[in-house]
Amino acid sequence: MNIGEKLAEKKINSTRVFDGELLQVYKDKVELPDGKTSIREWIDHPGACAILPVKQDGNVVLISQYRYPAGQIFYEVPAGKIDPGEDPFHTVVRELKEEAGVIAKNMAYTGLFYPAIGYANEVIHLFIAWDINQHANNVDDDEFVEPWTLSFKECLDMVKKGEITDGKTMACIWRAQIWWEQNQPFPITFG
Amino acid sequence: MNIGEKLAEKKINSTRVFDGELLQVYKDKVELPDGKTSIREWIDHPGACAILPVKQDGNVVLISQYRYPAGQIFYEVPAGKIDPGEDPFHTVVRELKEEAGVIAKNMAYTGLFYPAIGYANEVIHLFIAWDINQHANNVDDDEFVEPWTLSFKECLDMVKKGEITDGKTMACIWRAQIWWEQNQPFPITFG
Repeated sequence: MNIGEKLAEKKINSTRVFDGELLQVYKDKVELPDGKTSIREWIDHPGACAILPVKQDGNVVLISQYRYPAGQIFYEVPAGKIDPGEDPFHTVVRELKEEAGVIAKNMAYTGLFYPAIGYANEVIHLFIAWDINQHANNVDDDEFVEPWTLSFKECLDMVKKGEITDGKTMACIWRAQIWWEQNQPFPITFG
Repeated sequence: MNIGEKLAEKKINSTRVFDGELLQVYKDKVELPDGKTSIREWIDHPGACAILPVKQDGNVVLISQYRYPAGQIFYEVPAGKIDPGEDPFHTVVRELKEEAGVIAKNMAYTGLFYPAIGYANEVIHLFIAWDINQHANNVDDDEFVEPWTLSFKECLDMVKKGEITDGKTMACIWRAQIWWEQNQPFPITFG
């Protein structure tokens, strides 16, 4: 018996218990590996993209955004949900423009992660963007986000010091650093 | 006007739309910074703890666990929800025993993060544990988790290579490395 067979759970039935604008919540009955049954409550999510935009001078653009569930403002990388059937690169282009007010000439995929495996199937695709220019129309009025610029090193230090506490932003910055050190489109000092 | 006043959203009313065993889902009407109203759907979560257990030989203990929402097995650090009124250190002791089958003589807090700020108020407190011993009864039978041991360096490499994709596990390992380099209870080679 391999580890998958030993640990996997099988769906017996599934009921949508909340059909929201943002959240699709399901309650499923499952068969456990020992044959007993249990209940799994979970969120069906279309997936999202998060991007660290890097300017030609080595500075990066973060945004400040109020998040209602935790009732506080977070420092974040631009991010957004993937529309149905949308290529994640298109999501990135859109969110860079809408949230950070920038257009990027170059982008690279740096990896993916799952933010909340206990109760959601959400996967977040991580990107880095560089050779960016300010977009003519700047940030959309109805986005309520505040873009700001800081050095890549300051941004890493904020993660290390615990001043950036949003999971996707931490993952996006860490993966961006790893990617940059390996590929280095132009030199940036992190140390 | 400070940035908080410029970005904050005010609750107008709140309705619980799903009262589950695991998930408490709310749908709130809020007032946006421009005076318009909008809907926020969100999960109320009691918070959780995640711990990286480090053995005397510098190896760490991870667990393999099947996660139903994403339908796959993840490599994870031991973790669990905080019970009502519980001291997070107690949560850590319990989860180390139940999921990794170990008891730790020493523990330190390495920071916190928010895994899913778009739709949950969940905060995950991160810890590192060392001077650990195998617990007599080993892992609970009904946990369906498989503990395994690897070097701290291998564990970091798995994060870097994208083989570990669980957000809390990535954050816990990264913060553990930062903490260990600053405090170093005993020498470990990461390089």
